[in-house]
Amino acid sequence: MDEKSLRDLLGRVRQGDAGVDEAVAALKGAPFEELGGFATLDTHRTLRVGMPEVVFAQGKTAAQVAAIARKLAQRGPLLVTRLDEEKAGPARRAVKGSRYDPVSRTLSKGRMSLPVRGPVAVCCAGTSDIPVCEEAAVTLEVMGVEPVRIFDVGVAGLHRLLARRGDLDRCVAVIVAAGMEGALASVVGGLVGKPVIGLPTSVGYGASLGGLAPLLTMLNSCAPNVTVVNIDNGFGAGFVAGLIARQG
Amino acid sequence: MDEKSLRDLLGRVRQGDAGVDEAVAALKGAPFEELGGFATLDTHRTLRVGMPEVVFAQGKTAAQVAAIARKLAQRGPLLVTRLDEEKAGPARRAVKGSRYDPVSRTLSKGRMSLPVRGPVAVCCAGTSDIPVCEEAAVTLEVMGVEPVRIFDVGVAGLHRLLARRGDLDRCVAVIVAAGMEGALASVVGGLVGKPVIGLPTSVGYGASLGGLAPLLTMLNSCAPNVTVVNIDNGFGAGFVAGLIARQG
Amino acid sequence: MDEKSLRDLLGRVRQGDAGVDEAVAALKGAPFEELGGFATLDTHRTLRVGMPEVVFAQGKTAAQVAAIARKLAQRGPLLVTRLDEEKAGPARRAVKGSRYDPVSRTLSKGRMSLPVRGPVAVCCAGTSDIPVCEEAAVTLEVMGVEPVRIFDVGVAGLHRLLARRGDLDRCVAVIVAAGMEGALASVVGGLVGKPVIGLPTSVGYGASLGGLAPLLTMLNSCAPNVTVVNIDNGFGAGFVAGLIARQG
Amino acid sequence: MDEKSLRDLLGRVRQGDAGVDEAVAALKGAPFEELGGFATLDTHRTLRVGMPEVVFAQGKTAAQVAAIARKLAQRGPLLVTRLDEEKAGPARRAVKGSRYDPVSRTLSKGRMSLPVRGPVAVCCAGTSDIPVCEEAAVTLEVMGVEPVRIFDVGVAGLHRLLARRGDLDRCVAVIVAAGMEGALASVVGGLVGKPVIGLPTSVGYGASLGGLAPLLTMLNSCAPNVTVVNIDNGFGAGFVAGLIARQG
Amino acid sequence: MDEKSLRDLLGRVRQGDAGVDEAVAALKGAPFEELGGFATLDTHRTLRVGMPEVVFAQGKTAAQVAAIARKLAQRGPLLVTRLDEEKAGPARRAVKGSRYDPVSRTLSKGRMSLPVRGPVAVCCAGTSDIPVCEEAAVTLEVMGVEPVRIFDVGVAGLHRLLARRGDLDRCVAVIVAAGMEGALASVVGGLVGKPVIGLPTSVGYGASLGGLAPLLTMLNSCAPNVTVVNIDNGFGAGFVAGLIARQG
Amino acid sequence: MDEKSLRDLLGRVRQGDAGVDEAVAALKGAPFEELGGFATLDTHRTLRVGMPEVVFAQGKTAAQVAAIARKLAQRGPLLVTRLDEEKAGPARRAVKGSRYDPVSRTLSKGRMSLPVRGPVAVCCAGTSDIPVCEEAAVTLEVMGVEPVRIFDVGVAGLHRLLARRGDLDRCVAVIVAAGMEGALASVVGGLVGKPVIGLPTSVGYGASLGGLAPLLTMLNSCAPNVTVVNIDNGFGAGFVAGLIARQG
Amino acid sequence: MDEKSLRDLLGRVRQGDAGVDEAVAALKGAPFEELGGFATLDTHRTLRVGMPEVVFAQGKTAAQVAAIARKLAQRGPLLVTRLDEEKAGPARRAVKGSRYDPVSRTLSKGRMSLPVRGPVAVCCAGTSDIPVCEEAAVTLEVMGVEPVRIFDVGVAGLHRLLARRGDLDRCVAVIVAAGMEGALASVVGGLVGKPVIGLPTSVGYGASLGGLAPLLTMLNSCAPNVTVVNIDNGFGAGFVAGLIARQG
Amino acid sequence: MDEKSLRDLLGRVRQGDAGVDEAVAALKGAPFEELGGFATLDTHRTLRVGMPEVVFAQGKTAAQVAAIARKLAQRGPLLVTRLDEEKAGPARRAVKGSRYDPVSRTLSKGRMSLPVRGPVAVCCAGTSDIPVCEEAAVTLEVMGVEPVRIFDVGVAGLHRLLARRGDLDRCVAVIVAAGMEGALASVVGGLVGKPVIGLPTSVGYGASLGGLAPLLTMLNSCAPNVTVVNIDNGFGAGFVAGLIARQG
Repeated sequence: MDEKSLRDLLGRVRQGDAGVDEAVAALKGAPFEELGGFATLDTHRTLRVGMPEVVFAQGKTAAQVAAIARKLAQRGPLLVTRLDEEKAGPARRAVKGSRYDPVSRTLSKGRMSLPVRGPVAVCCAGTSDIPVCEEAAVTLEVMGVEPVRIFDVGVAGLHRLLARRGDLDRCVAVIVAAGMEGALASVVGGLVGKPVIGLPTSVGYGASLGGLAPLLTMLNSCAPNVTVVNIDNGFGAGFVAGLIARQG
Repeated sequence: MDEKSLRDLLGRVRQGDAGVDEAVAALKGAPFEELGGFATLDTHRTLRVGMPEVVFAQGKTAAQVAAIARKLAQRGPLLVTRLDEEKAGPARRAVKGSRYDPVSRTLSKGRMSLPVRGPVAVCCAGTSDIPVCEEAAVTLEVMGVEPVRIFDVGVAGLHRLLARRGDLDRCVAVIVAAGMEGALASVVGGLVGKPVIGLPTSVGYGASLGGLAPLLTMLNSCAPNVTVVNIDNGFGAGFVAGLIARQG
Repeated sequence: MDEKSLRDLLGRVRQGDAGVDEAVAALKGAPFEELGGFATLDTHRTLRVGMPEVVFAQGKTAAQVAAIARKLAQRGPLLVTRLDEEKAGPARRAVKGSRYDPVSRTLSKGRMSLPVRGPVAVCCAGTSDIPVCEEAAVTLEVMGVEPVRIFDVGVAGLHRLLARRGDLDRCVAVIVAAGMEGALASVVGGLVGKPVIGLPTSVGYGASLGGLAPLLTMLNSCAPNVTVVNIDNGFGAGFVAGLIARQG
Repeated sequence: MDEKSLRDLLGRVRQGDAGVDEAVAALKGAPFEELGGFATLDTHRTLRVGMPEVVFAQGKTAAQVAAIARKLAQRGPLLVTRLDEEKAGPARRAVKGSRYDPVSRTLSKGRMSLPVRGPVAVCCAGTSDIPVCEEAAVTLEVMGVEPVRIFDVGVAGLHRLLARRGDLDRCVAVIVAAGMEGALASVVGGLVGKPVIGLPTSVGYGASLGGLAPLLTMLNSCAPNVTVVNIDNGFGAGFVAGLIARQG
Repeated sequence: MDEKSLRDLLGRVRQGDAGVDEAVAALKGAPFEELGGFATLDTHRTLRVGMPEVVFAQGKTAAQVAAIARKLAQRGPLLVTRLDEEKAGPARRAVKGSRYDPVSRTLSKGRMSLPVRGPVAVCCAGTSDIPVCEEAAVTLEVMGVEPVRIFDVGVAGLHRLLARRGDLDRCVAVIVAAGMEGALASVVGGLVGKPVIGLPTSVGYGASLGGLAPLLTMLNSCAPNVTVVNIDNGFGAGFVAGLIARQG
Repeated sequence: MDEKSLRDLLGRVRQGDAGVDEAVAALKGAPFEELGGFATLDTHRTLRVGMPEVVFAQGKTAAQVAAIARKLAQRGPLLVTRLDEEKAGPARRAVKGSRYDPVSRTLSKGRMSLPVRGPVAVCCAGTSDIPVCEEAAVTLEVMGVEPVRIFDVGVAGLHRLLARRGDLDRCVAVIVAAGMEGALASVVGGLVGKPVIGLPTSVGYGASLGGLAPLLTMLNSCAPNVTVVNIDNGFGAGFVAGLIARQG
Repeated sequence: MDEKSLRDLLGRVRQGDAGVDEAVAALKGAPFEELGGFATLDTHRTLRVGMPEVVFAQGKTAAQVAAIARKLAQRGPLLVTRLDEEKAGPARRAVKGSRYDPVSRTLSKGRMSLPVRGPVAVCCAGTSDIPVCEEAAVTLEVMGVEPVRIFDVGVAGLHRLLARRGDLDRCVAVIVAAGMEGALASVVGGLVGKPVIGLPTSVGYGASLGGLAPLLTMLNSCAPNVTVVNIDNGFGAGFVAGLIARQG
Repeated sequence: MDEKSLRDLLGRVRQGDAGVDEAVAALKGAPFEELGGFATLDTHRTLRVGMPEVVFAQGKTAAQVAAIARKLAQRGPLLVTRLDEEKAGPARRAVKGSRYDPVSRTLSKGRMSLPVRGPVAVCCAGTSDIPVCEEAAVTLEVMGVEPVRIFDVGVAGLHRLLARRGDLDRCVAVIVAAGMEGALASVVGGLVGKPVIGLPTSVGYGASLGGLAPLLTMLNSCAPNVTVVNIDNGFGAGFVAGLIARQG
């Protein structure tokens, strides 16, 4: 409630147009909904941060996911992430018209229609990084932003990346997913004058430490246009890139 | 044995009311019981630390858990934690009237009846933190303290927490369970003038490092009323909160 | 502002006893004070969390500390922590009647007068842990709680601790500071039926990892009444113990 | 060199308007300049990534910094970071009209004049985080973007932050600097629908691990609009925010 | 394209022997091949780094591995690593004449025929290190270099190693695989005047930290002829040793 | 070969009692035996370090274990560790009279008969530590040393340990196994004037970090008679204690 | 107090030979001495663990060290460790006849006279490890055990160690100090049939991580007769070796 | 001593041409020299590993360095590393004709004259990495190998590196020094078909963790021709590259 609404409400109270009870309710108003004792849905999140609440399915039961998804899908676009195929059934059935993608492990329905400034590139170093990239791409699609996929262009063969410079140039932001040493983010960062979102993946072994190595690589990037999200966090990378792509 | 008992005993020895053998036994007395070569039950723990020995089932066989539980349940309230459903059968059968809860993975029976000063709030950031919270809640119940559940109120939608301030205000201590970044503990700590017990959970992925990230968050809290227990240690959080809630 | 105050205020607006501007101010009211562009003092912290804002001097200039201390001392008891002797001068001069203690590196003035249930024990394993203990003890004193000092009673000579059981027994909570392996917290935890606040210190070398070793020890304590604060955080340990010691 | 330029050049070669030597030079052309054997200045960086090369002074001698700064200042705006006061003299003298700021430890001259969409908020949790914030703010200023400073609004007193929501609302991106537990980034992330750049600082002690704790906090943020830069990397945070603020 | 080729091409353009389109194609030429949207094969890698692209099967589906292997086998020797037996079928069938080795988990076909200076020793500390050694040995064989196997010669019985000095002496480089404490690399390093490639393995438990312990051991070797590759990276060790063994 | 044997051999060469070939063989003699290309048995280990080679079964195939065990059992006492029940069959059949113990996961046969100075205590903090203790106990038995089992005597109930002081007093060394916080080693270290071997176990969760927490605890012990072996290394603890127990 | 003393005392109480007060005093008797509020000297430590309390000077003031040293020197042999030269003056003056050694940074006086079984070898890998070795050697000397110094025999030149086998053979235990990769402990462990005490040092840089690398090396030693003490803990290594060397 | 020498010696013993004492001396012969009790010089290291012992000055006193340097310089080329300027005096004076270089902190004299196959490239990402590169370059020079310096060519401006491909092409191995994220090693690895020695440096801050970040980057390199040495270990990188460059 901003100051203008507050002044309006108080003016209506003073003029008798609004009762005290009504005003108390409005001032205390709860923009959330309790669900079965296990969830408190944040129903104002779209207004506040520009996207409805997204369901992180990992650690929830299939029944919990389905109940939350059904509720959220009544209010706008739906995105469920980290949803394993064997757990996806109830939610798919609960939300008519939803689409499950086994590569990105997402369930989604609908898309937002805010004006955007351009597409977002989603690059990765190797074939094994594709599932994480697809989570980012689906997120962008739900936000109404076009993802431009540039896959398997790791630094051991840089010419593959350089051949796609045209695609990089037409995007307003670039997501770079990489496991192992994660050097691709710095190289892309040195090539473009746009925000680069480093997306470390857990692809690798031994001293990759489950993705900590590419995470550190990206955090220490000598290219200063690189910021970083959590390991394998395709959704977060897609979401921030989607925000950057928005008009106004 | 405190000084007074010691003086009494020695006085009785001097007066011949107690024999040397009896006094030696009392002075050497073993407040524990050996069980099948694999356990040494601490039978005086209630006197010393205010709660009977609690059975940590992880790493014990089903038969060991059942034998220990049967012994302990003969002396007072029983609490077994970390008891997977497939291992719970023998212990349930060994202790008549016990109750197994699959969410918190606890087996319990009875409750303590010491006077308490008020209830304890058990908050969590997300739905996936509920099992850990329930371990804390069951522990409080066994200690005779009322748990007030405030679930799924993470900092990405703070108004959900603020709407429950009344509940926070009537409690004598607050447990805050959170995985991922664990910021909820600091936010709650800034809102209440009571001890807050930070309970980091292993919910998360990548750089959450199995719960080390929220553990570090809570240890570094800028709210000075936050102390911390081990990752996923719902029992420990509940136990300390229960001690704080006690009269005298 | 609780619901009752809100209803009162709105009733006064309706009756014309309060103007809209006045109500807007009250509802938006800023319980803080900006200070020279570098600090935003939280002037309602006592109401909210039961203790005025405490100044963490590390990383602040001597002039900043002095300005903040002067402001806060006008409103109630003052506590400045981590204040090196060479930086203490301006703040001492700025606050008449303040007391600087070089062992705990604290500057303090006044004390709170809330009713308390009993004293708090402050134990440490070795002589080198005393500065951290004194930070806790001074904090307790400012909160109006008596600290009971039990120093140099490490587990390599347990009888030294056992000889002080009477002192432990008359306290409502126990702070245990220890560096090196930090085992003292578990041992004390096994002896008393009260909250034990583990306070790991950076005393040690090599594999103590600057205090991480005793921190881990205390977090993994097999005594479930142990909670833990940050390494060398004497203030935090004292503050929580002080809250536990309070009546009601 | 894009395809069109390439075709033009080759056409001119075919028509004899350009010689082979000239074409070789153009195709091999080196957009950099060697400097005294110790530096290879990237003279095309503005064209490529939208900002001239910035000098990271740490680890360079005062003479090296001065020589590089003099060269770069001949081509456009200058920014030198991590320049300690005692090492700043030669560079200040080498670049007429430059300005040294001891809080942010930056030397700068001039600013870029690209069109921007709005200001950028620079928040911090505590007074000790200000130097890092100022590095970000100076970077924004050199990029021609207005920084909006919101200092000392940590989560232990959230109302201080909420009082500045108007300022947050008029910005196109938000930088959040925080040490200790770094929870402020998540809280701000939950309040605004814009990209939030988490800037962990090394303010803290013990388990803050030199800034690793707030770094992990921000990487695991439950608010998905948070991306993260390296510890104390005010320049990187400012640079990315500046890119986001740009038109087109 | 080196300068000479460039001058030739431009000369031919000038003389009309080559058209602009042809030159553009040559200058832009893409030495890679897209494969089904999931892979971008680096077809010039042999020219550039002396070995065709090697397929890292971990994280790829069996179908992806088969498709890539078929493509690469059309151009020269084939090596697929980290190929579990249950996933190897499709690739074996896709590449006629290929050989699958379950110990090293490699699929290979053909070998390179560059001149080499001598064999390479492949040593290991214990029997459990053999699979990693075999990955290195197969890599050497595909590169046309003879591997000399020296297995189970750990430092707890040094005479076993000393008895094989003759074998060490006739090799041009030595690979030393070891898990647990990894001391063998230093000992071999002290015995031979040749490059030693330390190959830490994940053999061990507890404080071996999944191979980090031998990795650190080898990085800190007091024998300065030791360089190190990633944990269990038999392919990398074999590849570098193979490069060292090459003539010219 | 010591100097005396060398002089004897050379004297016999000089006197013609030994031929040059015989001397070369003796001087070059290989005290090991190759086994199927995968193992190099150290047949002189008993002479050198006082115990035959012990087989670490983890990472070896059942067939490899059986082949090595058969060979070693021909020469003296046999001990195989880390042998899972499902892999033990071939080795049991290969060595007549061997005994497999599923708790310690050891296969053993025979025992050494060197004179010893006294028994060794094997203590543990909790029931879950027993398997590791039994590995130590079986090792002691194979070395001909009596193990004195003192189980489940953790520091949360110290009187259980104190009641066994008589047993501690009659031993020449003490092994202390503990997971979680591992404090028991320091407490035992403070009670006895004998070498204490700290044996950290992986029992615990969360911040126990797979046993790193008790490992660090024991390494930082304030009791200086504590040395430490690897996590869960019951064999190593038993072996060193057995060496200490030996006469002369 | 053992059972026999207890029976004697109680018998004397019964016979009136001892009063109740006397018995209470004996049974409660405090084998320690408080010193100036900062230390609680453990005066029975020699009886209990075979060596008087040793003063760890790090973190204590020069005055505290001197006061404690004076007290302890009245009762038996004195050893102060980690005593920097600039802080040693007061303690030297406080204890007549004490000897300060700047290499090991120890202050000592007198030596114990218990019967010992033989000398202890103190080896190190490099010249920089000598200070830590000397701390061990001085400790042995105070315990009445002869240290045999074998310095600068690292694994990069193993023949230097092998040349000292005679010295190793006449010792009852071996201390091996090494920084960098710490491989020497395993090599020595493979050569001798005696307890080897691994003493990792902080000599090294980069990935030696302040001594963690050799610590891990030694903990993972494939030679099972190696146990480990804390980084740079020469005193601990010497103390345990001294205990092993004792008769009976 | 190889078999032929052994047979010769024994033949001479048999024929009376050599006495037993002489043979014992030869067979026991000590290829090292003790120096003042603090060093055991490995005088056969050139024969064994192809380079005389190199002095690591860190942790040694100026007098120790001078004594060792004087001894070694009598036998061949001299190299002292990590020699701070203030400690270099005595060694410079002790070795006539030696040269001290303050950038690389080396003292050297003479060079080896073995035949080499070509020069070695020494690249670095930034100006601050130059001291480490120079340590490698001086090492190469002492080994008689030409270093080709390619400095300040980090991945944020890749064209700077590509412009030096001719230099890379004429070298037989490439050293790549980089701090921060260390991506340069992978990029160079993808460009050349030669061994690349990754040399991580401690240049950076925050999440570079003192060089651990570039170390991990290089260990996880997707370019398989990269091996790695310790952080800042310019000497090791130069030494291995020098060995690779040697003929035969």
